[in-house]
Amino acid sequence: MIEEQNQEQNRSRGLRPWRTIDRREVFGAPPWVHVSVERILLPDGRLVDDFYCVRLHEYAMIIARTADGQIVMERQYRHGPGAVTLLLPAGDLEPGEDALAAAQRELLEETGFTCDGWIPLGSLVVDDNRGCGKAYYFLGTNARRVAAPRPEGLEEIEIELMSPQVLLEAARSGAIVSMATIAGVGLAYSHGAL
Amino acid sequence: MIEEQNQEQNRSRGLRPWRTIDRREVFGAPPWVHVSVERILLPDGRLVDDFYCVRLHEYAMIIARTADGQIVMERQYRHGPGAVTLLLPAGDLEPGEDALAAAQRELLEETGFTCDGWIPLGSLVVDDNRGCGKAYYFLGTNARRVAAPRPEGLEEIEIELMSPQVLLEAARSGAIVSMATIAGVGLAYSHGAL
Repeated sequence: MIEEQNQEQNRSRGLRPWRTIDRREVFGAPPWVHVSVERILLPDGRLVDDFYCVRLHEYAMIIARTADGQIVMERQYRHGPGAVTLLLPAGDLEPGEDALAAAQRELLEETGFTCDGWIPLGSLVVDDNRGCGKAYYFLGTNARRVAAPRPEGLEEIEIELMSPQVLLEAARSGAIVSMATIAGVGLAYSHGAL
Repeated sequence: MIEEQNQEQNRSRGLRPWRTIDRREVFGAPPWVHVSVERILLPDGRLVDDFYCVRLHEYAMIIARTADGQIVMERQYRHGPGAVTLLLPAGDLEPGEDALAAAQRELLEETGFTCDGWIPLGSLVVDDNRGCGKAYYFLGTNARRVAAPRPEGLEEIEIELMSPQVLLEAARSGAIVSMATIAGVGLAYSHGAL
């Protein structure tokens, strides 16, 4: 749906897309990291010989809200920032997996919570220049704990329930260094969910 | 400051950081993309032989607000998503450049706007796993146009002033596919600036 919208925008504005003339992979560490270099024709006729694109994972991120309005948050050491940070629950899509299915699976695995309602909030591209993957956001309603967490990754995870006020204070104070998580706050706010 | 906070969190919680035993660069396209593989010792004693880290640019992003509460937005084709999207003004830090100086310079270059007040809203790491660079956010107050835009990059840019309501509707509707921009919305909201 977003692709259709963007095609519509490409048509309706004076802004013209770039054209990829040639693409070759210059580094691959499947399934984690792929780097390609593209030869690009700009709308004004200029040629760019070496525009680098990075392909990483696609993942789902969840704003899970309990009946009394608390948000299910995680606290983890993450190696991207090299620090402990607060995060929204999230996890990679498995090959062929639907984003909603990944969101439901990851929330249960990482936190032991399940939700009654699932509302898609949209998807975002991680880096405006290079790509670096895509995140699919969902709002889960009436979140409740049904199992013990059984995270499968490398991380130790602490689960915390937070009121929207405490979550916003954490965002304001710098206790959240995860761009994806703060983007989740922004999307939830735009949907009137936070 | 965020690093100090995170060190504090590392100390005060049971969560322990990973330890990098060895690191070697496996791909480099300076100054744009660097990929390293790290050998990591997890807190529970497990060894991870091949954890990939990606280093991209550091950049500043600006929420510039006019005296009557409008936000300075850009509409551009961006090659990351491969689509036209709405964005907050942003640009890379030049070598040795301070994040605030980059924010002020980029806002003027890309949009022709300048601001009277500059309030740091914090910094975010782009990818929780791989790194992929860091974004520094600033709120600029009393934004006003003082020059014609003279963007230096590859992109064609259309400038639009938007009320917060219109900006939030754009975020809600999928007209913004830039994670960095939606994170700017989230940070601004947490600071009571949107």
